[in-house]
Amino acid sequence: MTFEIKERDAAGRLCHFTTKHGKVTTPNLLPVINPNKMMITPREMKQRFDIDILITNSYIIYKNQELKTKALESGVHRLIDFPGSIMTDSGTFQSYVYGDVRLDPVEIVRFQRDIGSDIGTILDVFGTPDQTKEISEQGVQETIKRAQKSIPEKGEMLLACPVQGSVYPELREYCARQLSALSADFFPIGGVVPLMENQRYSDLVRCILAAKQGLDPSKPVHLFGAGHPLIFSLAVALGCDFFDSSAYAKYANDGRMIFQWGTEKFDDLPELPCNCPICSKYSVKELRELDVKDRTLQLALHNLYVSFAELKTIRVALTEGWLWELVEQRAAANPFLSEALRVLREPAHLHWLEHHEPTSKKTALFYTGPQSLYRPTVFRYHTRLFTRFELLFPTTVVFPERTKPYSQWYAKEMTSILQQKNVNLVVLSTLGPAPFELDEMYPLAQSVFPNTVDRETQETAEHLLERFLHNTQVIHWHEGMVLKNDKPPISTLDFDIRRISAVADMQFGLGASDALFTGKIHLVKSKRTGKIRNIICDGSHVVSMRAEDGLFTLKIDGGRRLHRRLKYPLQRVVITDDATPFVTEGKSVFAKFVSDCDPDLRPFDECVIVDEQDKFLGVGRTLLTRNEMLSFRHGLAVKTRESIKKG
Amino acid sequence: MTFEIKERDAAGRLCHFTTKHGKVTTPNLLPVINPNKMMITPREMKQRFDIDILITNSYIIYKNQELKTKALESGVHRLIDFPGSIMTDSGTFQSYVYGDVRLDPVEIVRFQRDIGSDIGTILDVFGTPDQTKEISEQGVQETIKRAQKSIPEKGEMLLACPVQGSVYPELREYCARQLSALSADFFPIGGVVPLMENQRYSDLVRCILAAKQGLDPSKPVHLFGAGHPLIFSLAVALGCDFFDSSAYAKYANDGRMIFQWGTEKFDDLPELPCNCPICSKYSVKELRELDVKDRTLQLALHNLYVSFAELKTIRVALTEGWLWELVEQRAAANPFLSEALRVLREPAHLHWLEHHEPTSKKTALFYTGPQSLYRPTVFRYHTRLFTRFELLFPTTVVFPERTKPYSQWYAKEMTSILQQKNVNLVVLSTLGPAPFELDEMYPLAQSVFPNTVDRETQETAEHLLERFLHNTQVIHWHEGMVLKNDKPPISTLDFDIRRISAVADMQFGLGASDALFTGKIHLVKSKRTGKIRNIICDGSHVVSMRAEDGLFTLKIDGGRRLHRRLKYPLQRVVITDDATPFVTEGKSVFAKFVSDCDPDLRPFDECVIVDEQDKFLGVGRTLLTRNEMLSFRHGLAVKTRESIKKG
Repeated sequence: MTFEIKERDAAGRLCHFTTKHGKVTTPNLLPVINPNKMMITPREMKQRFDIDILITNSYIIYKNQELKTKALESGVHRLIDFPGSIMTDSGTFQSYVYGDVRLDPVEIVRFQRDIGSDIGTILDVFGTPDQTKEISEQGVQETIKRAQKSIPEKGEMLLACPVQGSVYPELREYCARQLSALSADFFPIGGVVPLMENQRYSDLVRCILAAKQGLDPSKPVHLFGAGHPLIFSLAVALGCDFFDSSAYAKYANDGRMIFQWGTEKFDDLPELPCNCPICSKYSVKELRELDVKDRTLQLALHNLYVSFAELKTIRVALTEGWLWELVEQRAAANPFLSEALRVLREPAHLHWLEHHEPTSKKTALFYTGPQSLYRPTVFRYHTRLFTRFELLFPTTVVFPERTKPYSQWYAKEMTSILQQKNVNLVVLSTLGPAPFELDEMYPLAQSVFPNTVDRETQETAEHLLERFLHNTQVIHWHEGMVLKNDKPPISTLDFDIRRISAVADMQFGLGASDALFTGKIHLVKSKRTGKIRNIICDGSHVVSMRAEDGLFTLKIDGGRRLHRRLKYPLQRVVITDDATPFVTEGKSVFAKFVSDCDPDLRPFDECVIVDEQDKFLGVGRTLLTRNEMLSFRHGLAVKTRESIKKG
Repeated sequence: MTFEIKERDAAGRLCHFTTKHGKVTTPNLLPVINPNKMMITPREMKQRFDIDILITNSYIIYKNQELKTKALESGVHRLIDFPGSIMTDSGTFQSYVYGDVRLDPVEIVRFQRDIGSDIGTILDVFGTPDQTKEISEQGVQETIKRAQKSIPEKGEMLLACPVQGSVYPELREYCARQLSALSADFFPIGGVVPLMENQRYSDLVRCILAAKQGLDPSKPVHLFGAGHPLIFSLAVALGCDFFDSSAYAKYANDGRMIFQWGTEKFDDLPELPCNCPICSKYSVKELRELDVKDRTLQLALHNLYVSFAELKTIRVALTEGWLWELVEQRAAANPFLSEALRVLREPAHLHWLEHHEPTSKKTALFYTGPQSLYRPTVFRYHTRLFTRFELLFPTTVVFPERTKPYSQWYAKEMTSILQQKNVNLVVLSTLGPAPFELDEMYPLAQSVFPNTVDRETQETAEHLLERFLHNTQVIHWHEGMVLKNDKPPISTLDFDIRRISAVADMQFGLGASDALFTGKIHLVKSKRTGKIRNIICDGSHVVSMRAEDGLFTLKIDGGRRLHRRLKYPLQRVVITDDATPFVTEGKSVFAKFVSDCDPDLRPFDECVIVDEQDKFLGVGRTLLTRNEMLSFRHGLAVKTRESIKKG
């Protein structure tokens, strides 16, 4: 098996996952195939939806003599006629629905191995949301015990060990940690179907977050039994890689159609609010006239079209950097989903999410309401503002937000004040206090807000401003205001230095500006826009300021300066000695060669690459979090930009 | 032409509209056909999207000698080979884009008539958003003048007269009123393309609302130049019936794909986030490999699939009663759209919207955030609570909201307090104060909220509670609380009377309960649920309480009582003498036979039907607002339930 992060956004990731039967791109959905009665054959699914993976039930095969014999003789791939990757479930869900299933936990794992399943599942103990913590803990311990017994039997099969623990986050995390230590290959989050059936999405979110916090980040995570597209985007943003859908068939049997916003009864629909091939081919009237079996099949196909379209949308949003925007959009369709989103505002969760959030995005931040203020990227901005930004003067002039980007007139007014007087200049923006030094930096200049926002957002921004300025004298600017000049004016160049210093500290930490910008500073500006592009110190090119997000790209001389002045392990990715020659030559850093990393580095951060003796080797851009670098066996950890031998 | 309301929700309507060339269901989208170069032929559009109407440009035909001759000889339907309804535009938009087009305003109307257009358009004066009010007013006056001159020339053709007035609501409303007085047939709202291009949706909303307030409600309204599905749902909720799309082709030519949430550049997309037949047939790679012309065609088809799917979704939402929910969902995709939604909170707009909002819905109210508190149906509840509900006692016990519907335990606790003590009992619900008497009435019991809501909603609810209770002593209930008994306890029956009285006053107005419930009151309750079903006074069945929304259905004896006690025109729909015999026999009331109506009646309200001498004829259910009843020439105004001859 290989599992490798290719794209990321929020705490979600787009990965390539390979089994013996081929490559799968995540996030993805495994249609559930009932080997006893296939409503849609795997072949047809391949043809229509280009599926590379599906899930079927080994318990059903095991219990049926004919299927069992056939599967043992020619394998599960022949049995259901599918050449791609096949995951098998173990009977746990059946035990939840029908009670005791009398199955030997190790026997069913061996059976899955023997029929050639690509990913088998242990017979875990389904923890229901209504059980006490004690009962739930017993189930967790039994699940761990069965995992221990099952792993030696797995052979070449990948083994999925579901994380249980009912609604108790500490149990979920414990279970996840224990199973990760056993080196299982694949982690379903189990026991969540009753939560989803009752739209307890807040509890579901807590379960996912707890499990993720305990899990080995280098293994796929599967939200077991989640087949409704309503929750896909949120689950992906929290780091789920796989879903499975028996819903497409179950709902169709029940005459219900799945939509991105929920479920509708086919009989109630005056027309088909969809453009999938089924809904484009048939009118509602024509569908009504089909015989039941055929209509049910068409509804099932529609359900799959809608489910896969949502996954495609999620993968696009993830790749382009607007996954949170999508999550917030989807939440507006369901009161319980938007409630679940508010769980993410809790500090512990925000910290965890911020840790995974890329520091650089391809797209602007689209504000959709108060929830947008709690996006990890905004939380990061606030955190850094309060810990990494220094107000230089005792007086602050506060400007109200106008348009974004500030109109030329407005910026001119600010610049003129800065030339008159030594004051801090802060804009009260929708995202809270925005010092003028940072106004070209992501996310301040790369945000889309309307002119008026809701009350909660306004109040939050004002509250943050107050906290930020509580030690300075505040003057609220109004049009036509003239500030008396009591200090010698500062030059434009001075403000440029303030700008690059402030951005460097926000990006690399307090002290970074002192490390980077020493000696004679020369700023190269864009001829077209007048904006700072390159910063040359004593003749050497230290950093470039990116036009798209106002953050710095580290040049090798800048890396050297940071390395010299910032203490180990700050800004470092440490690589093992066997990789040193390659990286020295300019090759990128594979995760398996990382031996340590500054825990404050985030994905897509600029970083300094060193060997285990802290010798400077080059600069690059991280692709993973520290935890991921130390866990993943496949894929890149750092994209090397310049190295000591190849600048 | 006929134009008839079939379904309604918000201020939107689903209508049947007929021209000489057939029936069209609204809301709908007219694809723009360029007669010079058809990217997709009308035939193919009919086949793929089952279109019944499209729009083409008479100015382009008029300017091209070959097209002109052909069109005059064999008609515009033959020219573009489309047997359905054809609307033609006049060249106004070309004059906006290219400057003066040198066209005689009356000549181009005659030309449209002569080529057999079903709906021709006058050459109005395009008002741009940047013009002064004076310039804009001149344009409006000129537009009205041209409409006056054009109407005598229209022949059998329907004539569309665009409402202009730039961003000045008073000009928009004036223009609308003047054009309505001229008996034009069809009302585009013109000059809005620059607003949409700049995402000035707040201004767009103000323009639509102002125009709607001045327009004859019995004529179709077309948002001219609106082709992006992002704004369809909001525009429909405000009463727009038609859109037109040249966007499908323009965007495709530019390599852009339309999605319900916005627009994406095809070249940037890693995959196709859609399941339309085009995106299901081609992978993004396969589309890239097509030659430009073919790819552009496929993108255009995709754009139309997405646009029509949104219209289908809107029609379903409108029919099922969740149009506001859909609008709020869509608004979450775009900061400027959610800003536009806040314009609707302004009191004048809320009043207008409340006037059109049906009083009864098929679906529960889904809360999506603070905006949901400003839904017209919630605004109505608050207004009526403050004007029609009387607090009976000097003391109020306030319960916090738990679950909805209240758990049995919770309701028991409340009932026990009511039996101990003569107090008002009010729940602080998400929708504000909810007196226990009203807790089965829409929207209180038919709402879906999460357990926790956002701060703005909470504060608004608390503020409303305070206002509501400012004259009484307030006791906040907590678990285990015992209230001392200082008055004789009241019986359960007494509370039932309080409930039916409160609901009757909320539904029919203050005094209605006194009118309805006199004599010996007998309550028939459901054996299964214990809830009140029928109310018998002195042996006659006065009203039934509906299980689905807790509101009353008026029986003929109830109608008689209201008629006797409530002064003219309260609760009345007045019909002309020529319709009296039919309605007396139990036939429903057509709009054209309505001579007056209580302005306080809302769509789907229970009403009393009288003749012009205020003689009681029967009871029924309104389908239209007063203004609509007095304007529409087609369709029903009241569905008669019982009449004096046919009970």
